Amino acid sequence: MQAIVKEKRAPGLTVKSVPKPSPGPGEVLIAVRHAGVCGTDLHIADWNPWAQGRIKPPIVVGHEFAGEIESVGDGVTGLRAGHLVTAEGHIVCGHCLQCRTGNSHICQNTRIIGVDRDGAFAEYITMPATNVLTLDGGTIPTEVGAIMDPMGNAFHTVLTAEIPGSTVFIVGCGPIGCFAVGIARAAGATKVIASDVNPKRLALAATMGAHVTINAKKDDVVKTVLAETNGEGADVVCEMSGVPSALHQAFAAVRMGGRVQLLGIPDVEVPIDFATEIIFKGITVYGVIGRKMYQTWHQMRRFLIGGQFDPRPVITHTFPLAKIDDALAAIRSGDAGKVILEIA
Amino acid sequence: MQAIVKEKRAPGLTVKSVPKPSPGPGEVLIAVRHAGVCGTDLHIADWNPWAQGRIKPPIVVGHEFAGEIESVGDGVTGLRAGHLVTAEGHIVCGHCLQCRTGNSHICQNTRIIGVDRDGAFAEYITMPATNVLTLDGGTIPTEVGAIMDPMGNAFHTVLTAEIPGSTVFIVGCGPIGCFAVGIARAAGATKVIASDVNPKRLALAATMGAHVTINAKKDDVVKTVLAETNGEGADVVCEMSGVPSALHQAFAAVRMGGRVQLLGIPDVEVPIDFATEIIFKGITVYGVIGRKMYQTWHQMRRFLIGGQFDPRPVITHTFPLAKIDDALAAIRSGDAGKVILEIA
Amino acid sequence: MQAIVKEKRAPGLTVKSVPKPSPGPGEVLIAVRHAGVCGTDLHIADWNPWAQGRIKPPIVVGHEFAGEIESVGDGVTGLRAGHLVTAEGHIVCGHCLQCRTGNSHICQNTRIIGVDRDGAFAEYITMPATNVLTLDGGTIPTEVGAIMDPMGNAFHTVLTAEIPGSTVFIVGCGPIGCFAVGIARAAGATKVIASDVNPKRLALAATMGAHVTINAKKDDVVKTVLAETNGEGADVVCEMSGVPSALHQAFAAVRMGGRVQLLGIPDVEVPIDFATEIIFKGITVYGVIGRKMYQTWHQMRRFLIGGQFDPRPVITHTFPLAKIDDALAAIRSGDAGKVILEIA
Amino acid sequence: MQAIVKEKRAPGLTVKSVPKPSPGPGEVLIAVRHAGVCGTDLHIADWNPWAQGRIKPPIVVGHEFAGEIESVGDGVTGLRAGHLVTAEGHIVCGHCLQCRTGNSHICQNTRIIGVDRDGAFAEYITMPATNVLTLDGGTIPTEVGAIMDPMGNAFHTVLTAEIPGSTVFIVGCGPIGCFAVGIARAAGATKVIASDVNPKRLALAATMGAHVTINAKKDDVVKTVLAETNGEGADVVCEMSGVPSALHQAFAAVRMGGRVQLLGIPDVEVPIDFATEIIFKGITVYGVIGRKMYQTWHQMRRFLIGGQFDPRPVITHTFPLAKIDDALAAIRSGDAGKVILEIA
Repeated sequence: MQAIVKEKRAPGLTVKSVPKPSPGPGEVLIAVRHAGVCGTDLHIADWNPWAQGRIKPPIVVGHEFAGEIESVGDGVTGLRAGHLVTAEGHIVCGHCLQCRTGNSHICQNTRIIGVDRDGAFAEYITMPATNVLTLDGGTIPTEVGAIMDPMGNAFHTVLTAEIPGSTVFIVGCGPIGCFAVGIARAAGATKVIASDVNPKRLALAATMGAHVTINAKKDDVVKTVLAETNGEGADVVCEMSGVPSALHQAFAAVRMGGRVQLLGIPDVEVPIDFATEIIFKGITVYGVIGRKMYQTWHQMRRFLIGGQFDPRPVITHTFPLAKIDDALAAIRSGDAGKVILEIA
Repeated sequence: MQAIVKEKRAPGLTVKSVPKPSPGPGEVLIAVRHAGVCGTDLHIADWNPWAQGRIKPPIVVGHEFAGEIESVGDGVTGLRAGHLVTAEGHIVCGHCLQCRTGNSHICQNTRIIGVDRDGAFAEYITMPATNVLTLDGGTIPTEVGAIMDPMGNAFHTVLTAEIPGSTVFIVGCGPIGCFAVGIARAAGATKVIASDVNPKRLALAATMGAHVTINAKKDDVVKTVLAETNGEGADVVCEMSGVPSALHQAFAAVRMGGRVQLLGIPDVEVPIDFATEIIFKGITVYGVIGRKMYQTWHQMRRFLIGGQFDPRPVITHTFPLAKIDDALAAIRSGDAGKVILEIA
Repeated sequence: MQAIVKEKRAPGLTVKSVPKPSPGPGEVLIAVRHAGVCGTDLHIADWNPWAQGRIKPPIVVGHEFAGEIESVGDGVTGLRAGHLVTAEGHIVCGHCLQCRTGNSHICQNTRIIGVDRDGAFAEYITMPATNVLTLDGGTIPTEVGAIMDPMGNAFHTVLTAEIPGSTVFIVGCGPIGCFAVGIARAAGATKVIASDVNPKRLALAATMGAHVTINAKKDDVVKTVLAETNGEGADVVCEMSGVPSALHQAFAAVRMGGRVQLLGIPDVEVPIDFATEIIFKGITVYGVIGRKMYQTWHQMRRFLIGGQFDPRPVITHTFPLAKIDDALAAIRSGDAGKVILEIA
Repeated sequence: MQAIVKEKRAPGLTVKSVPKPSPGPGEVLIAVRHAGVCGTDLHIADWNPWAQGRIKPPIVVGHEFAGEIESVGDGVTGLRAGHLVTAEGHIVCGHCLQCRTGNSHICQNTRIIGVDRDGAFAEYITMPATNVLTLDGGTIPTEVGAIMDPMGNAFHTVLTAEIPGSTVFIVGCGPIGCFAVGIARAAGATKVIASDVNPKRLALAATMGAHVTINAKKDDVVKTVLAETNGEGADVVCEMSGVPSALHQAFAAVRMGGRVQLLGIPDVEVPIDFATEIIFKGITVYGVIGRKMYQTWHQMRRFLIGGQFDPRPVITHTFPLAKIDDALAAIRSGDAGKVILEIA
């Protein structure tokens, strides 16, 4: 089968033919139809320091996908050939304290597809049946199923705060930030404010339902949020950018006693004034990693099937598998929303 | 001033002239513009057993209202003449365990206006400043302000459950049930199902956003809810009717591990099979009384000002003060939504 | 191997030789050392209406046990021969809404060992590895491990309420009630009150740490609880008896805004005055079934290993496997605490 | 009356005679018996930058106290001369979003006694009746009542985390840290670990119940916590020191998905690696300020009256009012536990 492979400990990805996998006991074999391209894939292609420390070539990359089950291994029940499905890409141990107490998303022994083992940028992938979730016979299209991994990050970020009747400030309008805007609206936020430095991304946030967008290059972000929230600050702030200055804006723009959800990953240390930014404000800060298994998936399915939330406006580019370099270039441009691959 | 008075320990209400009150220290005097008529007022008029045990005539009745502040007593800050306001009608002690731990809505020493002291069916009423909430300069109209007490019951019922992405079953489509339908929609419920025996009320529920309405006289309520929820039952059930058979439907229609919010007051004992209706289902049941002070009012204000929720379609009848008997007759008919008085 | 078998659709249990099971893929084979005898086993022995509807003889009975792993099936990791273990007796599907959202304890497809398939009153039992929990190399003795199932019910009941600084009223001092007394003490309850009709059980509750015991045959239960709680009622009430009169006491003795945990199973319908017993009190009622998987087991392990809670005073009788009839008789007497079997 | 006064915008405090206050409407006059000396008082005496920006001399200092009501102003109910009482020193507005939603402890308009208006290091003080809490007729002695303000900080810190069955790591064993140790034990923590650089403070922490103490000067703090928690890290970490290196230890020592409560105030910015210290760990961080009004006071009263927690071992020094300089010197030494004044 064709696949996108990280072949060597050096920059670049290769489209090449690799053996088609077959499902072991408890696994399913999925013919991939659509796959989402993520900043992580870019890091692997670029062979950045994180990738150098984590990735062991050769490996098929890609962790966001949806497709059709082709066959199932021994002992699999409830899933069968023909089912349209997506999958949680974190394969967890089931034994650690976190797994035993409903927090598998922070399992200490997590293995990620396309990072720690072969991934989804390929015609076929095998997955543990436990990780597989159906697309309800196609009610959720595979192009949407393919991006439920990053959408799930957004659902996890937004829905672990109290949203109905809240003012919500989304910091950073990349694809996950734009998903978060739409989710906050669908979940009953009273006012959604979004900031970014890129006008195209701000336009996308507005399309997804932001009441107010702030161009952080031109406008005073914190002042605008305060003005839009009766001088109180936002009830909930979702930091999706990882930019140090934006992190300070997040803490300055949240109201006393509010909640800051941190998803964006700063790549440097950020000096924090704990007294004024966190403690005296009496706020709660929550680190968001992955998707709750499988509470987040359940909520996502409900929002999608109920028609409350449609992520498709965020998908701005679609490429065939062979054009992975073009897909990565679109992400690098900074202007793209979500970029996906159409595989079959 | 003109007021509606319960004069004697016997059926009936009297429209008559009574002395205009004046505000004591910490109180405000409010010129009433609109007032809501409630089933409780009907019980007082009819002099039912509950009223006989609680009401001490003569007393001005009515507890739902909004109006304009005419003057303020000593020591009142933040409120002044000309402010458009409504008020929480439960006057609480501030000292008991419940008041000291954020649960004033169940204060053991609550006194209710129009029940335990003079009420709001009058040209003027005095209220403790603490109980008064502004209508944001009229952004919330007084006809809406006048029904924020029963709307608050609906907000309390709905928003103490987790609504975003949930299936919600509203049992009983009186005014508070119809409010609950709209609130559940605005708060991100995936599917809202409503039942009643009265087609007019079901039509009102549909207007407020119910995806599915069930005529409990004709259809199998529980079967329909199960069919609409993938056989699982509803995540959240709000019992707003107080009808014994509906109470059993509430327990039968909630999913395993779901939540039943009880607001409707049965007037007889109801035999419950705790094993199958509650324990084996692992559900949570919550008794809803009044409005959380003042979390519920805060949420309500947000939903109204943000334009997420408009209760006005539920208001079906408006009468002048002198026509209180017509107002009560409209409620007795069973066909009315919310009935209000226009006082000034 | 020797086992206690329900052979026919009629009263009685038989001690007899049956084939020793062998572990399938993902299963472990456990040599049982101790097993707990439960009211459910009594119902099966007595062939009561519930048993007639549920049990399909022949079947090895018993669902509470601990022992030593003798061998493991294919694909089992983390467990091996020699490990001392106990197990959750509810075998769940892993696929339903409840399993997918962290509520496996109310899985719609639960199969219980000793009820729906062969159980633990035998020299050996096979269990899915997922259900198995280690006794930390014997830090938790097998006689304690054998009763972690009913203890887990008590942990689930107590620790899903807020206990530190709370007044807690335990209604019914059977073994699970007595466990609950000790757990509430260990979890920081300020005052623990326990009621029962049997002086021996009340003495056991006092041994486990109850500050106050009430003989429901002689004393006014509700009046005593109110007197012991400053007239307010208990913050948390755990109903462990299933007796209708005790259920009313539970609702009467809980404070405004308090919480009633329902574990005891009434065998008849109980007429409830929802207005005064639940709604006007603004309380929360929670139906307790099984143990949270595996949050409850994790908490239990912590309390046992930390030495915060020792259930052994509740174990009043120990019998060999062959003496199951004596064990059942001890339970029938109403005077026993926990009754266990010593198998190896 | 005699009082300790900040007279001028310069270092130093003065013991002098000032007019005795009298209670206005809604206020009570309290004869102070005991008062607690706090680091804040030291800052005011030393005229540090914070004090220079906040304090407007002349002002009576001191905010922790207990005493006897001498008289009550107009409109005060429920309190009367002779009552032994303490008081919440934060006087809040009651109108802002935070006050209206149960979060008065972060009221935007808070005025603190001894900081923003006259305080408690005096023979008499007036307080709003709302802020006053009784000592249950002396069941709680005034020397304990006098330190319920900082104890309340500790209760707020500990009890907003889930403690029963948890491992708890207290970073910093000043008086509030030592209180936190005892509260965590009383609330059912399985293991309490405490760190400090001062052996006397560690000894005090051990006296209050710490299972393990770590001398941060000699031992590897994080390694020790991991070793004591099965390699997982602590479930709950309470950072009470404000020391930058300790803050990093807090984040390193908390388990995946755990909770870090921040009370200590760093006086410099601290560079944080959000990726590894917060986000990838999936933790929750909470800024603790003041005491929840009045949930924290209620819990504290329960623990004290129930005899679950005795803070008196933490009180190491008692001085008369005139010896305030000696009291401040004891705090400066770094060896003191809690230092109090005996006034009458």
